[in-house]
Amino acid sequence: MTKASEGNFFEDFSPGMSISHAVPRTVTTGDVAMYSALYGMRFAVQSSDAFAQSCGLPRAPLDNLLLFHVIFGKTVPDVSLNAVANLGYAECRFLTPAWPGDSFHARSEVIGVRENSNGSTGIVYVRSTGYNQHGDAVLSFVRWVMVNKRDKTSPAPQTVIPELASHVPAGELAMPEALDFSRYDPVLAGSPYCFDDYEIGEKINHIDGMTIEEAESQIATRLYQNTAKGHFDAVLQRSSRFGRRIVYGGHVMNLARSLSFNGLANGAFVVAINGGRHVNPAAAGDTVYCWSEVLGKQPVAGRTDVGALRVRTVATKDKPCASFPDPATDDSGSVLLDLDYWVLMPRHCGEDRGESQ
Amino acid sequence: MTKASEGNFFEDFSPGMSISHAVPRTVTTGDVAMYSALYGMRFAVQSSDAFAQSCGLPRAPLDNLLLFHVIFGKTVPDVSLNAVANLGYAECRFLTPAWPGDSFHARSEVIGVRENSNGSTGIVYVRSTGYNQHGDAVLSFVRWVMVNKRDKTSPAPQTVIPELASHVPAGELAMPEALDFSRYDPVLAGSPYCFDDYEIGEKINHIDGMTIEEAESQIATRLYQNTAKGHFDAVLQRSSRFGRRIVYGGHVMNLARSLSFNGLANGAFVVAINGGRHVNPAAAGDTVYCWSEVLGKQPVAGRTDVGALRVRTVATKDKPCASFPDPATDDSGSVLLDLDYWVLMPRHCGEDRGESQ
Amino acid sequence: MTKASEGNFFEDFSPGMSISHAVPRTVTTGDVAMYSALYGMRFAVQSSDAFAQSCGLPRAPLDNLLLFHVIFGKTVPDVSLNAVANLGYAECRFLTPAWPGDSFHARSEVIGVRENSNGSTGIVYVRSTGYNQHGDAVLSFVRWVMVNKRDKTSPAPQTVIPELASHVPAGELAMPEALDFSRYDPVLAGSPYCFDDYEIGEKINHIDGMTIEEAESQIATRLYQNTAKGHFDAVLQRSSRFGRRIVYGGHVMNLARSLSFNGLANGAFVVAINGGRHVNPAAAGDTVYCWSEVLGKQPVAGRTDVGALRVRTVATKDKPCASFPDPATDDSGSVLLDLDYWVLMPRHCGEDRGESQ
Repeated sequence: MTKASEGNFFEDFSPGMSISHAVPRTVTTGDVAMYSALYGMRFAVQSSDAFAQSCGLPRAPLDNLLLFHVIFGKTVPDVSLNAVANLGYAECRFLTPAWPGDSFHARSEVIGVRENSNGSTGIVYVRSTGYNQHGDAVLSFVRWVMVNKRDKTSPAPQTVIPELASHVPAGELAMPEALDFSRYDPVLAGSPYCFDDYEIGEKINHIDGMTIEEAESQIATRLYQNTAKGHFDAVLQRSSRFGRRIVYGGHVMNLARSLSFNGLANGAFVVAINGGRHVNPAAAGDTVYCWSEVLGKQPVAGRTDVGALRVRTVATKDKPCASFPDPATDDSGSVLLDLDYWVLMPRHCGEDRGESQ
Repeated sequence: MTKASEGNFFEDFSPGMSISHAVPRTVTTGDVAMYSALYGMRFAVQSSDAFAQSCGLPRAPLDNLLLFHVIFGKTVPDVSLNAVANLGYAECRFLTPAWPGDSFHARSEVIGVRENSNGSTGIVYVRSTGYNQHGDAVLSFVRWVMVNKRDKTSPAPQTVIPELASHVPAGELAMPEALDFSRYDPVLAGSPYCFDDYEIGEKINHIDGMTIEEAESQIATRLYQNTAKGHFDAVLQRSSRFGRRIVYGGHVMNLARSLSFNGLANGAFVVAINGGRHVNPAAAGDTVYCWSEVLGKQPVAGRTDVGALRVRTVATKDKPCASFPDPATDDSGSVLLDLDYWVLMPRHCGEDRGESQ
Repeated sequence: MTKASEGNFFEDFSPGMSISHAVPRTVTTGDVAMYSALYGMRFAVQSSDAFAQSCGLPRAPLDNLLLFHVIFGKTVPDVSLNAVANLGYAECRFLTPAWPGDSFHARSEVIGVRENSNGSTGIVYVRSTGYNQHGDAVLSFVRWVMVNKRDKTSPAPQTVIPELASHVPAGELAMPEALDFSRYDPVLAGSPYCFDDYEIGEKINHIDGMTIEEAESQIATRLYQNTAKGHFDAVLQRSSRFGRRIVYGGHVMNLARSLSFNGLANGAFVVAINGGRHVNPAAAGDTVYCWSEVLGKQPVAGRTDVGALRVRTVATKDKPCASFPDPATDDSGSVLLDLDYWVLMPRHCGEDRGESQ
């Protein structure tokens, strides 16, 4: 029997099944530099040790989306190597800050299965948790993917669909320990707009666009040790329904997060992802734009320095977002991503309160 | 009002105006690795901790051009987001060595404005200074850019053109503290030619060429957190006068610096940039070559181990430099860059004086 | 006389000649991150400090192939800048583990020369050794290259062909000090197959493919400070026999090593390269696949935790490897690499023995 794995198929999953994922991974400042250079991330807390220290932290933490993709990557060989599509995310919470030098590993539990009526694919729901070297859970999220069956004639399992929260309740957001925005310098951070300046329903066109190159997409996806074939194998993809390599959806998510800086620069931490959907696949050559909408605002109990803003960011391809294209109404295929998440933001920007670096 | 910035236009600048730039940034060995891999830099002092230690330094310092681009990048969202062209540099001095782990921020002062006769653009002169986490100035430089007016009918400001030195006087070059080239190993460094071997007027064809890829240009430009749209947005650029993305001029500068190793391997530190001009824009697919000319030589007072060499490096595209193409006479559009700078170099290579690593 | 080097030609080499190579180089976690992201390496010991510690090591060591390419890169400006082809490797032994932060330099000795009958090229054999900052040899290998003559009319030197071992004897493999696989966690490492599960003659199709992008190839080759012109200069290469840039053979070697994870995940350390041959050149756009064959098995004297597996890995382009295409019989030009090497592997995977990170 061959020792190379073809990955799991729909029949291999059953609710309650637990999976310990390979490969353990230390994320270093080197990985942070790669990540920065792939997206041009500019959020100040993650960009500067000195700025992070002015916010009470020992040093710049890892970007939570980097952490998300690293843990996601670990789940791919077991969960989605034979996935037809990555359908959605829910209940993603970042539980404790992660730091350069931390070593991560991951486990997943299968929480639902549903065979599709075509009999050749099914949907698998998993809850995945990432751990650091101390055994602390650093993040947890649910995702569901459409997976091929190995054998179309195998019987359908009993359908189990998990109940998933429409969004992470504000009360369940984990505040990074020691975080203190009372000396936050919005001039250095890049925007005069803080929590108190945003209104629910407000929409922001993030203006700028970024064109995806094949090498960038591959380098990013390998940075996360994500092995999904569709991102790497041009020969295989020639016979796929896309006809070519497709870009890891998380790459688009990061590009959107980076572009959203222009309008949400003080949205310092992504603390939760309420839900997300890759509306259309992206490919090299696509230029990503995005816009955001404020879905909610939540002061943090007992805190005057920080609040949680619920934001929806919609990313498009080749379509600037001045008109706020919505996946619900856009039928041009240009919407790539619809992401709903919570960010922590300083409450007041007020006057420039001196100098941090 | 939207919270996303369109950047400043010509009308927004006035002499005396001071700008604190976002985003603070810690530059790590990760960034150094990215930078190395983007250009193939081989200057020994910046490449090896052990070699740097043999030169009296605590470890390998950051490459000064990396520092320059990081500080430059910070000024882009405020100074040149709406720039038509980056016209020139002057009076750039590296003031104190920068180290992996340092956190940088930047400020600029507007020192000149001049509206162009077309009434739709103007030239803005700024002096920008980069600081480390201790508040020490690490470099200072002047640049001038052509910026669009927001409104063609707005009145022209009074013209102020700063007086700029033709070059940084050798006496004002900042010697990195503790630097000592008395045990410098030229064999390890890659060339038997030191300060005493170069003659004013001498020209060097650096022979090798390097072809620019779009992904490399984008990754590099994002490494510097430079947000200029022309480097990233293929859709926008389709309607520009170039018709496509153009390469950040600093990327060409770095390629030229890296190629100049073959002939100037012992030009260990760029300590000042006297002036620089992007003669023509570069785009992906261009192959960069360069040649250099020795413009001046200056021993360092009281030192027998080190001298300052004033070098002019001219970079071209798709044109090997055996004939030393000069922007003054070349009308083929193949000259990309004309850069005038000072490097520190060991005085004598003499015999191989044993072993450093 | 110009100070830029054209590199050595065949006439410049003679047996017994010793070469101290530029440029000394510190390899950091930043370089490791670049390397990871270029290949998607997943071998657990090199990927996670915590996992490495569970194997008795102080932290994750450098991947030995990264070390190989860094040392190889140093030899290029002196040995193979004018090489027509990189013909083969032999007797490559990794002598002591290398760690992030180590500074390396290299020396070579010419051990053979043979002029080709065409009178315009010759073959040069060199033994190269890499050293760390303590002066310890970290690896040693022989390679031979076909080099152009400077002058076709110069007389042929006396032929000296070194005797090279067909493979590194198992008894000469250097065990990394402190390495202890008795607590090795195969679930975390990604495969249930250990030393005892492999049989001599067994073949493994590694299934997955990875398409090479020009930017990736260039970034990788510069990461190793390898200056061979054929990888970088599209203008020059237009008039070469390939008509375009070719990919550094070591890049293909790394892609094959990364793809071989699927089937050889517990082949934790490459401890020796017995021989290697770049059967055909690769270019951007090629999709690399590979398969492996177990050539030998050697328990380690006095050890029950670890064994040495001798593996041959064959890489192809645009040709999945289910049929195990062999360079001896394949005449389609699709075989790129034929590599024969030793890996260290835990003896028994047995039951999952608890948790490491």
